[in-house]
Amino acid sequence: MSEIKVVTNILQTNDEITAQNKKKLDEKGIYVINLMSSPGSGKTSILEKIISRLKNDIKIAVIEGDIYTTKDAERIEAQGVPVVQINTGGACHLDGDMIKNSLNSLDLENIDLLVIENVGNLVCPAEFEIGEDIKISVLSTTEGNDKPLKYPLMFEKSGAVILNKIDLLPYTNFNKEEFYRDINSLNANAVTFEVSCIKDEGIDNLSSWLKDRVKEKKNS
Amino acid sequence: MSEIKVVTNILQTNDEITAQNKKKLDEKGIYVINLMSSPGSGKTSILEKIISRLKNDIKIAVIEGDIYTTKDAERIEAQGVPVVQINTGGACHLDGDMIKNSLNSLDLENIDLLVIENVGNLVCPAEFEIGEDIKISVLSTTEGNDKPLKYPLMFEKSGAVILNKIDLLPYTNFNKEEFYRDINSLNANAVTFEVSCIKDEGIDNLSSWLKDRVKEKKNS
Repeated sequence: MSEIKVVTNILQTNDEITAQNKKKLDEKGIYVINLMSSPGSGKTSILEKIISRLKNDIKIAVIEGDIYTTKDAERIEAQGVPVVQINTGGACHLDGDMIKNSLNSLDLENIDLLVIENVGNLVCPAEFEIGEDIKISVLSTTEGNDKPLKYPLMFEKSGAVILNKIDLLPYTNFNKEEFYRDINSLNANAVTFEVSCIKDEGIDNLSSWLKDRVKEKKNS
Repeated sequence: MSEIKVVTNILQTNDEITAQNKKKLDEKGIYVINLMSSPGSGKTSILEKIISRLKNDIKIAVIEGDIYTTKDAERIEAQGVPVVQINTGGACHLDGDMIKNSLNSLDLENIDLLVIENVGNLVCPAEFEIGEDIKISVLSTTEGNDKPLKYPLMFEKSGAVILNKIDLLPYTNFNKEEFYRDINSLNANAVTFEVSCIKDEGIDNLSSWLKDRVKEKKNS
């Protein structure tokens, strides 16, 4: 019983801190993405592409969640946008408190879009709100089309789902028809995108959609 | 403080149950693999290949860990070996208690090799012993060679590391030299294998090594 109690308390605290984070971000009109996927699906590569497309039009900042290294933050920093690294030291997801501390290191007056790249993990990150406007999940074709049904929570909670590495489709047994059928059954409202970072395909479409979301929030 | 206490208790209990499981499995001379990776790295495909190679020589059984579905267990069942499905109902890893219950459903007198396929997750499963003789982790080339350093615990604890989807190597920016350097720096004793399930490459080598491990345990 005490086990459940503690878990409940942790979640309540996370909800409270997250609500404070969200209020702060909303007041500044910052559009916040919680970017989630399995390790190696291509979150950082997609982010690099989006930043290169949008950084002259909108002010972007990134919070990088990783267990130990700063590898991804270094890649984002090379794109010339502010980046904060969170090292969870073993924890499998980001939480509200980690985001709260990160926000103190960012100049919120000069951000239109804040992308929070969560720890690579298809399970745990989906369970924790961190103050986002939207959850976006990435699946790559090489992971197999059975993943949405096997790891449903993340796909159920995502406002957008990006299918990455479509250039590798011919070399896999990924069934796109089944993939879209499953996504639709889990979450009929999810917007979907197909992307290849290596071939630079689908990035314009995704970036343009994101820019519209950022403007929408600014004007709301 | 109560938080840490509860976590400690959970871990102690897991250790105790796992010790009981291990004793039971050791008494029967069953070689046990804890098979771990990110979702979509190819654990089940590798397992299908190994079973088809070895099932006439040794008696294999499988415990399939999944969050919700029975998709993987159905694939293994089609190979004609006993399989027990564990659905964790949201939990991101298997634990000793889940394995204990599964062992009750298996005929331990007729098993030489028990493969436990953990939940697809590069973080949490590595933190819990479940009664295995060896942890084997799988990484696929499409996930990127930066993953061992980003998710070190699993690779540090693995007795063997399988690099899967080597057929896709030419279409990725995976750097094998860096991969082996990083694996070696984390865990110099890990045995490594390169495998392609689609091209049926490297499976004989892996199966033969596994068969030797099973025999070693039987004769010990």
